[in-house]
Amino acid sequence: MTFLTRYEELRAIKQEFAARDWFPGTSGNLAIRTNSSPTEFLVTASGKDKRQDTPDDFVHVDATGQLIGEQNGRPSAETLLHVEVFNRTTAGCSLHVHTVDNNVISELYGDRGEIRFRSQEIIKALGRWEEDAEVIVPIITNHADIPTLAADFAKHIRTESGAVLIRNHGITVWAPTAFEAKKQLEAFEFLFSYTLKLQACRQAIY
Amino acid sequence: MTFLTRYEELRAIKQEFAARDWFPGTSGNLAIRTNSSPTEFLVTASGKDKRQDTPDDFVHVDATGQLIGEQNGRPSAETLLHVEVFNRTTAGCSLHVHTVDNNVISELYGDRGEIRFRSQEIIKALGRWEEDAEVIVPIITNHADIPTLAADFAKHIRTESGAVLIRNHGITVWAPTAFEAKKQLEAFEFLFSYTLKLQACRQAIY
Amino acid sequence: MTFLTRYEELRAIKQEFAARDWFPGTSGNLAIRTNSSPTEFLVTASGKDKRQDTPDDFVHVDATGQLIGEQNGRPSAETLLHVEVFNRTTAGCSLHVHTVDNNVISELYGDRGEIRFRSQEIIKALGRWEEDAEVIVPIITNHADIPTLAADFAKHIRTESGAVLIRNHGITVWAPTAFEAKKQLEAFEFLFSYTLKLQACRQAIY
Amino acid sequence: MTFLTRYEELRAIKQEFAARDWFPGTSGNLAIRTNSSPTEFLVTASGKDKRQDTPDDFVHVDATGQLIGEQNGRPSAETLLHVEVFNRTTAGCSLHVHTVDNNVISELYGDRGEIRFRSQEIIKALGRWEEDAEVIVPIITNHADIPTLAADFAKHIRTESGAVLIRNHGITVWAPTAFEAKKQLEAFEFLFSYTLKLQACRQAIY
Repeated sequence: MTFLTRYEELRAIKQEFAARDWFPGTSGNLAIRTNSSPTEFLVTASGKDKRQDTPDDFVHVDATGQLIGEQNGRPSAETLLHVEVFNRTTAGCSLHVHTVDNNVISELYGDRGEIRFRSQEIIKALGRWEEDAEVIVPIITNHADIPTLAADFAKHIRTESGAVLIRNHGITVWAPTAFEAKKQLEAFEFLFSYTLKLQACRQAIY
Repeated sequence: MTFLTRYEELRAIKQEFAARDWFPGTSGNLAIRTNSSPTEFLVTASGKDKRQDTPDDFVHVDATGQLIGEQNGRPSAETLLHVEVFNRTTAGCSLHVHTVDNNVISELYGDRGEIRFRSQEIIKALGRWEEDAEVIVPIITNHADIPTLAADFAKHIRTESGAVLIRNHGITVWAPTAFEAKKQLEAFEFLFSYTLKLQACRQAIY
Repeated sequence: MTFLTRYEELRAIKQEFAARDWFPGTSGNLAIRTNSSPTEFLVTASGKDKRQDTPDDFVHVDATGQLIGEQNGRPSAETLLHVEVFNRTTAGCSLHVHTVDNNVISELYGDRGEIRFRSQEIIKALGRWEEDAEVIVPIITNHADIPTLAADFAKHIRTESGAVLIRNHGITVWAPTAFEAKKQLEAFEFLFSYTLKLQACRQAIY
Repeated sequence: MTFLTRYEELRAIKQEFAARDWFPGTSGNLAIRTNSSPTEFLVTASGKDKRQDTPDDFVHVDATGQLIGEQNGRPSAETLLHVEVFNRTTAGCSLHVHTVDNNVISELYGDRGEIRFRSQEIIKALGRWEEDAEVIVPIITNHADIPTLAADFAKHIRTESGAVLIRNHGITVWAPTAFEAKKQLEAFEFLFSYTLKLQACRQAIY
């Protein structure tokens, strides 16, 4: 049953990210599409300790982010971001996590509104195989009003794969499959950690 | 039985923090309220390797921090800090841990007597949902005399949730439940790590 | 059966490196010789999440890197690097991984074309026991064209043990056995991390 | 049987340190006293991957570091350091590990010949409870000749608990019991990591 396959894919990612400590203070939320017409998806329930693993860790919502039928738990307020992803693209999975490194990057480069990467082999993991490909991750303001935040976020959703940093509010990465979304998120986190370490160490050497 | 539920909650936190290496050199201690009138609580026994998991890892104490009946083990001298928390508020859980990052923060900001945070999404995990909320963590002197330390610490216990850094002596976080206390501690540690990494990397970039 | 012994050796290394998070974004690839005349080896299949453990995680290839018979999966394009190692030396194992630290080192020292180490006890793990031994790791350009990259890489393959950094594209380490290759890779990563931390902290102290 | 109890104590420490990645490149060695008159002790066998767990991971040696009877494996050349500890004190356990942080500290402070700590709560884990206790860790030259190294090392063995850093060659910590030695080593590593992070971040703030 496809629904259960999607559930298990998202659950596996949740367990792996929990082991990486990527949900500090119950932050972060994960979503996977379960249907296309109409759009339906599973999303992590609000306010849970994502190191736990229970049947109530996820809720099933429709294209507006509302619960489909009666369920324990409620979707995160940030479900609206995933709603934008699934309504605007054919993406199958959308992942939002806070890490120390993605937050520091979002602050250091926030005034520029973006961070750019090139000449890194790991860029191929983002599906960019051309020589000297440049990857741009937009960094948007962390509007306290979620609908405003979602509208600003939506401006950067152009293709079925993508990523947006919200200043001091983590990264959201989406892609056609759970496998692809996880791979791309790992690649972005690698690039962020690389950039910070390079900056911390570069000065000392010269 | 509520007593056993509380015990299992605290034991789970102890195991998780041990896996995070948050008890270096047997440091740190954890407490959970088991009764309100009169105040009684469980607290980690003194001098144990908290990576172990045995029935003698915790002792049951009264509102003055004295053992209730005969028990193996003795409460940490720092039990007095938890005594202040449980007597002055309705908090249900109080956690004290040493991490490299919380100690470095306590030293870097110690002369100011506090560290302030704002414009960080993770502040919501501290129960502060208003826009542009500011969080202040006081940093107190590490008095060698525990009663003196406890008295200084007690001045900062105003509500059922809170946190105090002791200079080069870790953080104590308390909240209504074990779940809330752990969530808030994770959020504080995230903020500390973020701050240090931002400082280490900021200079290099400009 | 030697083939299965080699398979299990490589599989164990894959599991251990996955636990270390040394395969970000499905990067990295591992190879172990299964025959000498003619050269045959096992290599990780392309594009897999190396945290998984399945029979299709490896493919069996010949001295040109082509699949031996019908198999699920295909060898990584970077298999050509391992081909050079196994054809030019009697090495039994060749490991290629991306870490934040080896990539940062490759960038910081890339213009010099090499990084040198001496006066570190851990150099003995590289099989260099003479007093004051100096270890040199060449750093080559990350040519987008793999045959060009392999040809440049091959210039540095002189003995049955060795290591080459590719700029912003990880390290490749080879040695007579899987045990030796893993030990040497661990030693190099230690040296890289040591160097970066020394540089980040040195300035502050004086 | 005391011998087996000591074996299990040392084996548990080896497993825990392996999980911490404290044996890079098969470095490090651990020893525990099994007899006092005459001195006999168990020590990790030379050249093993300490992430493995086999009956041949340890060898049993006498007061000169020679094998007692026939055994698989041979003691590390560095067994001479543990010989000095067990012959000069009543210490029961002696632990030698390389970490990035203890090596960086040994280099940054090597010219001074020592590093000093005070005003850190964790100093109590070193058995120093007096107010404002100062802890001094000597840093000695890493002589390539092991007997010369052992002789220099021996000058700093004065009590049943202690620690010596060898420049770019890790730390050796000894104490009356395995529990105490591990606790003290954890405390030293905490102090080293704290010091490095403070130095890396201090400059940026002012």
